[in-house]
Amino acid sequence: MIAALERVRTAQVAAIGGVDRLTLAYFNREKKNYEEHVYDEYLEVVSMLGDITLKDGKPFLHIHGTFGKRDMSVVAGHVVSASVFPLLEVVITPTKNTALRRFDDDVGVNVIFKT
Amino acid sequence: MIAALERVRTAQVAAIGGVDRLTLAYFNREKKNYEEHVYDEYLEVVSMLGDITLKDGKPFLHIHGTFGKRDMSVVAGHVVSASVFPLLEVVITPTKNTALRRFDDDVGVNVIFKT
Amino acid sequence: MIAALERVRTAQVAAIGGVDRLTLAYFNREKKNYEEHVYDEYLEVVSMLGDITLKDGKPFLHIHGTFGKRDMSVVAGHVVSASVFPLLEVVITPTKNTALRRFDDDVGVNVIFKT
Repeated sequence: MIAALERVRTAQVAAIGGVDRLTLAYFNREKKNYEEHVYDEYLEVVSMLGDITLKDGKPFLHIHGTFGKRDMSVVAGHVVSASVFPLLEVVITPTKNTALRRFDDDVGVNVIFKT
Repeated sequence: MIAALERVRTAQVAAIGGVDRLTLAYFNREKKNYEEHVYDEYLEVVSMLGDITLKDGKPFLHIHGTFGKRDMSVVAGHVVSASVFPLLEVVITPTKNTALRRFDDDVGVNVIFKT
Repeated sequence: MIAALERVRTAQVAAIGGVDRLTLAYFNREKKNYEEHVYDEYLEVVSMLGDITLKDGKPFLHIHGTFGKRDMSVVAGHVVSASVFPLLEVVITPTKNTALRRFDDDVGVNVIFKT
């Protein structure tokens, strides 16, 4: 992974492009789990936005995205996985501060915490 | 507010996360006012994007956002207010130039103007 | 164009604001062409995200966008053209690396290639 190779600890990530297979999720706050949806079609990556932080000393990627369909409507949410086609144009911008992340049992998600 | 504390004058702001109460608006250009919509449910913050500029010498936040529902559809527009849950991951990137903002009577919105 | 004036070679571009005429496109990967849709109404620019790269030695702009309607729904895709109203707040962030772009006959789009 680029973040590990380049020793990026904390960064902003933004991308546009296309995908031909995608898994999105919505966080169910009552059940504390992610509800997943799979899409098997070509979608424009209208926006992927998120960050790289350190979890257990390793880069952790957290991305939300908006994906455009043929009729100009969208699906959007927490990105679980994506298969890129034909390309994804990504800008990774390291931040001045380092942010650490860990799993929070009360909330049910990986949160950034104060050090 | 962070911008005032850190003496940020002009910056780009980008965020992802979640909210459980949200007020969005659409600018009605004929009536020159914002039409507001309130959402009382957990929504993924798929994208919040905007800027901090100086208005009357104080930091002024202007944010537009896309928010994801449980069925992967979205609501989107000008962000009036939002209640964060469980967290909002924000990257604030100061710009080299300073931008000033003031209310423009003709248009009916706060605009960035040339100095 | 700002990129040529400021000698920007590769940059990230992000913007919010409003438009009153817009042409969006979806890439049809079977036919290898862009299917265009035109909108003649005021839309909030919820997110415009993309990049400037060099194609044949000249700045080339590639932008995807999400645009908000009066009912808080969106249209989104590859931005072909847009008429700004009342303003577009753009942040252009030059990257450390230079990216070059050229047309790829196999895929049917302008791609960034390794040098």
